[in-house]
Amino acid sequence: MKGTNNKMKVLALDTSNRPLSVALLEDQTVLGTVTMTVHQKHAEYLLPVIEDLMAKSDLVPADLNRVVVAQGPGSYTGIRIGVTTAKVLADTLKIGLVGVSSLQALALNCQRDGQLVWPIFDARNNNIFTGLYQMKNGVPESVLADQHVDFDDFYRQVDALAETVYVIGDGTHFADKFSDNYLLANSVDNLPQAARLGILGEKLPLVTDVNDFVPNYLRLTQAEADWKKQHPEEDAGSYVEKI
Amino acid sequence: MKGTNNKMKVLALDTSNRPLSVALLEDQTVLGTVTMTVHQKHAEYLLPVIEDLMAKSDLVPADLNRVVVAQGPGSYTGIRIGVTTAKVLADTLKIGLVGVSSLQALALNCQRDGQLVWPIFDARNNNIFTGLYQMKNGVPESVLADQHVDFDDFYRQVDALAETVYVIGDGTHFADKFSDNYLLANSVDNLPQAARLGILGEKLPLVTDVNDFVPNYLRLTQAEADWKKQHPEEDAGSYVEKI
Repeated sequence: MKGTNNKMKVLALDTSNRPLSVALLEDQTVLGTVTMTVHQKHAEYLLPVIEDLMAKSDLVPADLNRVVVAQGPGSYTGIRIGVTTAKVLADTLKIGLVGVSSLQALALNCQRDGQLVWPIFDARNNNIFTGLYQMKNGVPESVLADQHVDFDDFYRQVDALAETVYVIGDGTHFADKFSDNYLLANSVDNLPQAARLGILGEKLPLVTDVNDFVPNYLRLTQAEADWKKQHPEEDAGSYVEKI
Repeated sequence: MKGTNNKMKVLALDTSNRPLSVALLEDQTVLGTVTMTVHQKHAEYLLPVIEDLMAKSDLVPADLNRVVVAQGPGSYTGIRIGVTTAKVLADTLKIGLVGVSSLQALALNCQRDGQLVWPIFDARNNNIFTGLYQMKNGVPESVLADQHVDFDDFYRQVDALAETVYVIGDGTHFADKFSDNYLLANSVDNLPQAARLGILGEKLPLVTDVNDFVPNYLRLTQAEADWKKQHPEEDAGSYVEKI
């Protein structure tokens, strides 16, 4: 057993979009957590924020037992930094790694059992990264799979369910499109909270091979699409490995 | 108008109990927030945490427009540090100060409209600091006043309402006493979030005289009780001023 005691110490991080959220937990209790939205310099701030949290908690990296990361979808740069940092930590420290959908992670801010939760990341031009979840004992279970889709198309699918829906994330970007069945979260609940991610991540299976773990972009980048055109013989997952 | 732009910049802080929570907001949007539970060295960590948040947000103290502080009840030392820090900042920077009940601040973690919320701070020997609130448009409204009371006495009062109650804070210390009508919050929602405090504090009236602003202990310390016995001629509010 690693660490200064035999308690389960988890580092959780979410840099999927503009917010950066990091948490350190011990046996599902929050030791410390930081959430910043002021800029998107995750490459610059992620490691110092982790180091500062660990120092204030009198812990060193070797004390960690698990890393939980929001795996995407979201900003390419954001999820790549988060996933890479998590992989390097897990690989270096020889500890478990868990990836969680960034949409499911955000849905955790709703804690009302049975509630339908609709997390939204704006992807411009009326497109969104989204999925539909239902809360079951504090865990968001997938109702409609995570996808990259036109807002209006997905709205019609959700609306067909004719239930009350809690909208979270970038829902305010589409504020005038929701009927009275939709409750928009406030500005605090629209931000991911890595502490909730860490608690969920303790219940989930570990990644079996850390080296094979990649961000879940949910769509091709232009560069990736070009690369695939030039390398038709390669399998779908190899782009990130090769570049 | 102060600050680098004309947006409302609020610093919110809650050191009422073991958790330390600090947030920086701009026009009700979270710029950054830190919550630590790992130790109760608020005197040591509060200022560095504030300074670090401001630095990461590219702000200086003179940019602030308002300070919002959890005024108590809670730990004597904790609320004294929080209130003193808030007073010094407000007085030095000549900006508005708002005090919010620490129990109401914690109740903000429930965002379900109409829900009864019961925030609890353990005060030992089966005593609690508590109050009962009901959520109205995101604001906890007082149903039973904040008080220092025996847990079982207050439980009987709440139970007489025969409604579903969301229990938050140190409810887990009394876990075996709650009937099925009581839903205990998870370990994240049991922690105060200064970001919610800051948003509420923007809607509340300012303290009229910063120098008269004192912690709301809700009970006498032993030292205070002794002092009162020796100074029967002094008025009730003067103890903190005099020592």
